[in-house]
Amino acid sequence: MSSTATASNTTAPTQILQVGSHSYAYRRFGNGPGLPLLSLQHFTGTLDNWDPAVSDPLASGREVILFDNAGIGRSSGEVPETVAGMATHVMAFLDGLHFDRCDVLGFSLGGMIAQQMAKDRPSIVRRMILVGTAPRGGEDIMHLEKPSLAKHLQDPRNTGYAVLQKIFFAPTSTSQASGEAFIARLMQRKDDRDPPSGPNVAKAQITAFREWERVAGERFADLRGLHHPTLVVQGFHDEMIPVRNSYWLAENLPNAALLAYPDAGHGSLFQYPESFTRHAAAFLSSDSESAVF
Amino acid sequence: MSSTATASNTTAPTQILQVGSHSYAYRRFGNGPGLPLLSLQHFTGTLDNWDPAVSDPLASGREVILFDNAGIGRSSGEVPETVAGMATHVMAFLDGLHFDRCDVLGFSLGGMIAQQMAKDRPSIVRRMILVGTAPRGGEDIMHLEKPSLAKHLQDPRNTGYAVLQKIFFAPTSTSQASGEAFIARLMQRKDDRDPPSGPNVAKAQITAFREWERVAGERFADLRGLHHPTLVVQGFHDEMIPVRNSYWLAENLPNAALLAYPDAGHGSLFQYPESFTRHAAAFLSSDSESAVF
Repeated sequence: MSSTATASNTTAPTQILQVGSHSYAYRRFGNGPGLPLLSLQHFTGTLDNWDPAVSDPLASGREVILFDNAGIGRSSGEVPETVAGMATHVMAFLDGLHFDRCDVLGFSLGGMIAQQMAKDRPSIVRRMILVGTAPRGGEDIMHLEKPSLAKHLQDPRNTGYAVLQKIFFAPTSTSQASGEAFIARLMQRKDDRDPPSGPNVAKAQITAFREWERVAGERFADLRGLHHPTLVVQGFHDEMIPVRNSYWLAENLPNAALLAYPDAGHGSLFQYPESFTRHAAAFLSSDSESAVF
Repeated sequence: MSSTATASNTTAPTQILQVGSHSYAYRRFGNGPGLPLLSLQHFTGTLDNWDPAVSDPLASGREVILFDNAGIGRSSGEVPETVAGMATHVMAFLDGLHFDRCDVLGFSLGGMIAQQMAKDRPSIVRRMILVGTAPRGGEDIMHLEKPSLAKHLQDPRNTGYAVLQKIFFAPTSTSQASGEAFIARLMQRKDDRDPPSGPNVAKAQITAFREWERVAGERFADLRGLHHPTLVVQGFHDEMIPVRNSYWLAENLPNAALLAYPDAGHGSLFQYPESFTRHAAAFLSSDSESAVF
């Protein structure tokens, strides 16, 4: 239950937590006065997709917990085909750690899971940071078949992490240079790496995105019941989940501030890690009932 | 040319600058390493509408300059019926002060004037903060006749500043309480106050809003030529200039970050002065070519 001595995702050991018949892979590092920050990852992402330039500064004020959902990395089981199914695994993992309350950083798919957790068990989430994500009933969520994304995903030169530079960053020289630096940081960890996600992971998660796009009842009505202080963060040039989804999130959540970044795509937090972690830490350090930081 | 000893809009003396046939009323106070911050005011607002909770903290790192445009407060002349005409007066005033470069905080109408200045004389603006405003070609700009605003403006109980609590703040108990505190702060200044604006000021400025709503050529194309680092700030529940105008601004300006506030209307900077001035000071203190702060 104690934090590791090494407060970096480049070196923190991968741990396995057994909960019932499931084993969950995770890393925890850092310490400080804050509640633990559970970090929920993007489409096909593993523990090794957390940029140390984002996770490590946040770990200087609180414990950061990175989590592989079921069927990802070294976690057992099948990838659920709904966001709600993924949220159930996160809550089982937190129960297994005997955590009854934490802060949550959810990026992309992870931000959808965070919203679902806040709805299903409101008390387990104190504050949420939702980056590059969408509400249930949002639009144009992860349509990898559209030409602006398919041209990169189907380009055989984009092997491994290289495709992330293309699809997480804006098509400008400045944003692409940030993307190159991001990829280099992901490679800093040499040992004890997760296996990359295969096509079965992608298929199940895409099914979950299609289900998340469906409107159930009055559109965005669920959001108005989530009073958790929330910081919504987005890049204006996100092709994977367009920025209007963050507008809908922040307008309909009763207690959300919005920070949006220029010259940035889906991975705005990885493009501007110094700015993002400074604002995120200020937001997380607040004890106010308001999201304003 | 020196700053006053008293770094507060509650006590700074009103000064008059003669430029050609025009006399302009202004106040300047504060000091620090930053460029002077020219502050451009909202519809019918005078020097006395600048909340000391906003102007005074900013004056701890730079000189703050408050300005009455032509025909407002104790400035001579007629109120122009176009934003461009107002921008011409601001630039004449800055020339009269021998300023060739400054930062600009433009609120509402003032934010439109700031954009026009950045277009007409790009070198005079270093960084801009645009609060509760709209681009040329924006929508639903200051339509005081619509029921949500008219019910307050036509209520005889809302005399003097009292109407600002209704139209600048959201219809929640928390936002209205902030509005009441804002009004009390505006009344802290006891002497040397500006005369309030009369119906002729309102009429000319409304004419300018109608002209500003007109699209000339490709919508928002002008914004893409303004490379100044810009911080766009808005409340999600602004009835006077809806938040989608800030989305258009920040999406089309090539170098703008957006910060949007929950539970806030048009006067978000006056509702959250501690947060706003902290973010504004961080933004203004940056020497980067990027708006990211």
